[in-house]
Amino acid sequence: MTQQKTFREVIADGEGIFQPSVSLDCVIFGFHENELKVLLIKAKSTDHWALPGGFVFKDEDLDDAATRVLKERTGINDIFLQQFHVFGSAKRSDWNIHRSNFKKDGIEIGPDHWLLKRFITVGYYALVEFAHVITTPDSSSEECRWWDINEIEELFMDHKQILDKALDTLRLQLNHLPIGYNLLPQKFTMPELQKLYETILNKTLDRRNFQRRMTGFGILKRLKETRKGGAHRAPFLYSFDMRKYRKALKQGLHGGW
Amino acid sequence: MTQQKTFREVIADGEGIFQPSVSLDCVIFGFHENELKVLLIKAKSTDHWALPGGFVFKDEDLDDAATRVLKERTGINDIFLQQFHVFGSAKRSDWNIHRSNFKKDGIEIGPDHWLLKRFITVGYYALVEFAHVITTPDSSSEECRWWDINEIEELFMDHKQILDKALDTLRLQLNHLPIGYNLLPQKFTMPELQKLYETILNKTLDRRNFQRRMTGFGILKRLKETRKGGAHRAPFLYSFDMRKYRKALKQGLHGGW
Repeated sequence: MTQQKTFREVIADGEGIFQPSVSLDCVIFGFHENELKVLLIKAKSTDHWALPGGFVFKDEDLDDAATRVLKERTGINDIFLQQFHVFGSAKRSDWNIHRSNFKKDGIEIGPDHWLLKRFITVGYYALVEFAHVITTPDSSSEECRWWDINEIEELFMDHKQILDKALDTLRLQLNHLPIGYNLLPQKFTMPELQKLYETILNKTLDRRNFQRRMTGFGILKRLKETRKGGAHRAPFLYSFDMRKYRKALKQGLHGGW
Repeated sequence: MTQQKTFREVIADGEGIFQPSVSLDCVIFGFHENELKVLLIKAKSTDHWALPGGFVFKDEDLDDAATRVLKERTGINDIFLQQFHVFGSAKRSDWNIHRSNFKKDGIEIGPDHWLLKRFITVGYYALVEFAHVITTPDSSSEECRWWDINEIEELFMDHKQILDKALDTLRLQLNHLPIGYNLLPQKFTMPELQKLYETILNKTLDRRNFQRRMTGFGILKRLKETRKGGAHRAPFLYSFDMRKYRKALKQGLHGGW
């Protein structure tokens, strides 16, 4: 049985196989039962949690590299990753941290090591139902788990900044793009949909305004059934009108010109 | 008097001063009197028009590099460039074209030249009033001019694809972000504003729908004056309510949650 190389082993002798200067980092947001989380990884010998990220093979498309890196480092497959920003500050790398991490693992890297050079990183993000996602870190040296986004204070290098920018992007997109498909059950109530928005925005919304606005987008179908079993009046169930939902994904919730 | 190095001279011995693998390209859209143009440059010895682009110095922030490159290659200063996409296909470079261009200029570059390696390029774009923009190509070897976007069939390498993606981005943004400040005179008529949208979208819009929708955004102030001198009934003049315009730039024309 051949042992797959660990990420650290690949890193240690990665020069020549990776495109220099360019890296990528993935911000995977997870939603489940009114909680918004983000997937972070960590080498067991360090205290630094980080976004799952990696490098681009010399003959590999950038977007394919993002999919591969995410799969290798977390086990996650088949999710749509979207570019959201390139982080290109000349001062963004703090490779002292990286170097000391390697040292703890018994890997000595010199000052001219390719990994200590400057990298410009492309940020990718996705939002998934995290109960449906099975994460398996790539090697025994990595931990991988969902963190409540409000718990996170510090991350490896500028990863907190990258996470914050992804969260800003997600929140801004709520103003003009539909959301909810694959995050909610196929039939859901208006309060459940509202809770999704409130969780992402981290604030409460007015119930009647929300319902009026959401109905106005024309992407919902109100079903004949109601949700049974609560103490209150049984709320109506809705589902997305997928034809209109997909159209709104392309030209925005408010329609094109 | 020291002669500034030409772009081609810098390119010829650029290894060691530029960040490897990473380039950037600028799509500068220009609007003036109901025409939408894009700024292209060309080396005089070649037939290939290209987007103004360049490389990142090793100690330079990526966004600063975009501003510098645009200034060096076109003379344009002080415009807000926005990242819109990273082009990272492994097959995007066609350096045979580049190599033969250099040859015509008497610069021989070998197969291991840094310029012939793979580059991942970051696309930046801006939309300006082109009558206000003075373009001055950086050296005698470059031409620089505005092209009608409908005239353009082929460009250097994948630059046509980059241009198309920028145009798609601009058109989608019209659905949820305000536009017009700095492109229209301070006081303008509704038909003039409509014409701006029609020019960018390359289609005609219904006059009454446009007016109703545009008024609904709340970013316009109708002035007491009218535009005098036409054959028709004098149309009202408008200006942007800049406080609301700026707010809409941040959270979208339809407001935040």
